[in-house]
Amino acid sequence: MSGFWDNIDFVRDELQKVNKIIKRKVRCSEKTIESALIDIFDNNGKMLRPGFVILAASFGEYDSDKMTQIAAAVEMFHNATLIHDDILDDSKIRRNMKTVQEKYGKEAAVLIGDFLLSRCMSLLTVCDQVDTIKGVIRSMERLSVGEINQMMTKKRTDVSINSYLKRIAAKTAILFSLSFFIGAVESRCSKDIANRLKKIGFDLGMAFQIKDDILDLIGDRTFGKSIGHDLMEGIYTLPVIYALRHDKELEEILSSDKIEDLNYLIDRIIKNGGIEYSEGLAKRYTSKALKNIETLPNNSSKLVLKEIALQLAERKY
Amino acid sequence: MSGFWDNIDFVRDELQKVNKIIKRKVRCSEKTIESALIDIFDNNGKMLRPGFVILAASFGEYDSDKMTQIAAAVEMFHNATLIHDDILDDSKIRRNMKTVQEKYGKEAAVLIGDFLLSRCMSLLTVCDQVDTIKGVIRSMERLSVGEINQMMTKKRTDVSINSYLKRIAAKTAILFSLSFFIGAVESRCSKDIANRLKKIGFDLGMAFQIKDDILDLIGDRTFGKSIGHDLMEGIYTLPVIYALRHDKELEEILSSDKIEDLNYLIDRIIKNGGIEYSEGLAKRYTSKALKNIETLPNNSSKLVLKEIALQLAERKY
Repeated sequence: MSGFWDNIDFVRDELQKVNKIIKRKVRCSEKTIESALIDIFDNNGKMLRPGFVILAASFGEYDSDKMTQIAAAVEMFHNATLIHDDILDDSKIRRNMKTVQEKYGKEAAVLIGDFLLSRCMSLLTVCDQVDTIKGVIRSMERLSVGEINQMMTKKRTDVSINSYLKRIAAKTAILFSLSFFIGAVESRCSKDIANRLKKIGFDLGMAFQIKDDILDLIGDRTFGKSIGHDLMEGIYTLPVIYALRHDKELEEILSSDKIEDLNYLIDRIIKNGGIEYSEGLAKRYTSKALKNIETLPNNSSKLVLKEIALQLAERKY
Repeated sequence: MSGFWDNIDFVRDELQKVNKIIKRKVRCSEKTIESALIDIFDNNGKMLRPGFVILAASFGEYDSDKMTQIAAAVEMFHNATLIHDDILDDSKIRRNMKTVQEKYGKEAAVLIGDFLLSRCMSLLTVCDQVDTIKGVIRSMERLSVGEINQMMTKKRTDVSINSYLKRIAAKTAILFSLSFFIGAVESRCSKDIANRLKKIGFDLGMAFQIKDDILDLIGDRTFGKSIGHDLMEGIYTLPVIYALRHDKELEEILSSDKIEDLNYLIDRIIKNGGIEYSEGLAKRYTSKALKNIETLPNNSSKLVLKEIALQLAERKY
């Protein structure tokens, strides 16, 4: 796991337990599945979502065995959706590693994703709140609808900011939100606190995805993602959608069959204020989250949450 | 729905309710998803599995609203797995219709399957027995492992009968079994009756799949499946595995790069007793099911079950 939680002892230690649970749950008689999944979880990014589960749960009656299991399920769910997403986007590399679909083929990737999903669901049977399982199901539903929508609106230069916001809600914010919510309800937080945490998760997710989309255009290339990937795939994110409103030529270039000079395109997007506008909107979501964090009961998790919100907003990769 | 249950008024009427529930549940703001799913369920085969749920439930305290909802979930689950399976097998036609992957592409098919799965899960929240959801999850897990195993053993002429039996258990028998089991436990049948129905479902499923694999080689071509599809794909089913034991030349032909004369191959499989052996094994599973059906309490569903077991064993398509 990357060093994102390194300074937050409590979460870091719990996430080590989460990793152990995941390693146990991806064991499988079919060794192709097992080794594909071990590769993924040996190299599983920031572990934001399971960290959120744990943080939110610490606002209630924290039960380590239960919470680490739920956090593992959430991380597995997220990765199952990534495996299926990579099939869609025909992505070859994720986190500097070959994707499952690149290494084992699209066909195997479908099943490996399904398998991981079933293992994630089996962990969730530990949950005793009916809202939890409903939330996961709803999130899965929204994700698939959002992705299909993204597929269907590919290369459409008339896509609205509103439709973009819906898309990233489905893609990212809903699972962020759910991670906070599950942690809260499963640790018996009050309804009011659980709903506040849910909102905080949502806004952090929106800010996170907008930032991600900015970094896809102007970010550091060391993260293992190539620059301009979405743009080349015909997926127009906020900076592009905003710039398109002010730049007829950009529309013409995008409508032509082949993009020849990516850097020239990105320059036009910057010049037309696409990045600036997007940075502004991301900041607004972060501020909204921070404002809601302020209303939470005072404890160390609240301080951590504030710190995390700022760190995510300022990240460079 | 095809006429399979036409003579069994009670099941037929309940399945009409099931169809209405499915139609309602596949509504989606994303019209590509909705129309793909409506096409499938306008043309959804025998509806064996939801019929089994209803039949099994009638051994307990039958609650129509609940049972039709569960039956709908089971049928949706089955079709979600078929959508993903067709990606794997690169199948172009199912039930005389273009498959989702052929019509909308493999990428969309992944998501449409995921969406259907999430809608199926949301229906299952009506279940109040923890064994039910666990059973569905376990079935999903076994299915994906079984399919991966099938992929990995493609074109291997040394595959054992035992490995074949495991594969078809995962592919078919487990969901047949689960359909009976869910119907029974959710209608509060005794544990003993539920377990007997579960076994009956398993054996019927094994017999059904062996028969399916026989029909894939020598069946009537009007069902919308091409003959020898599995064989051409390098998936060796029971008749082939059995014949391989007695025919060195068959092994050589299969090991060569291209199969030129499918009819010649099928003739060799027949001559080497592959079909006869498989028919025998299918009959043994059917007999076992019939013997267990005999031990059930006397009621009209028991008679129906007997009838169904025989009908499935004798079917020509």
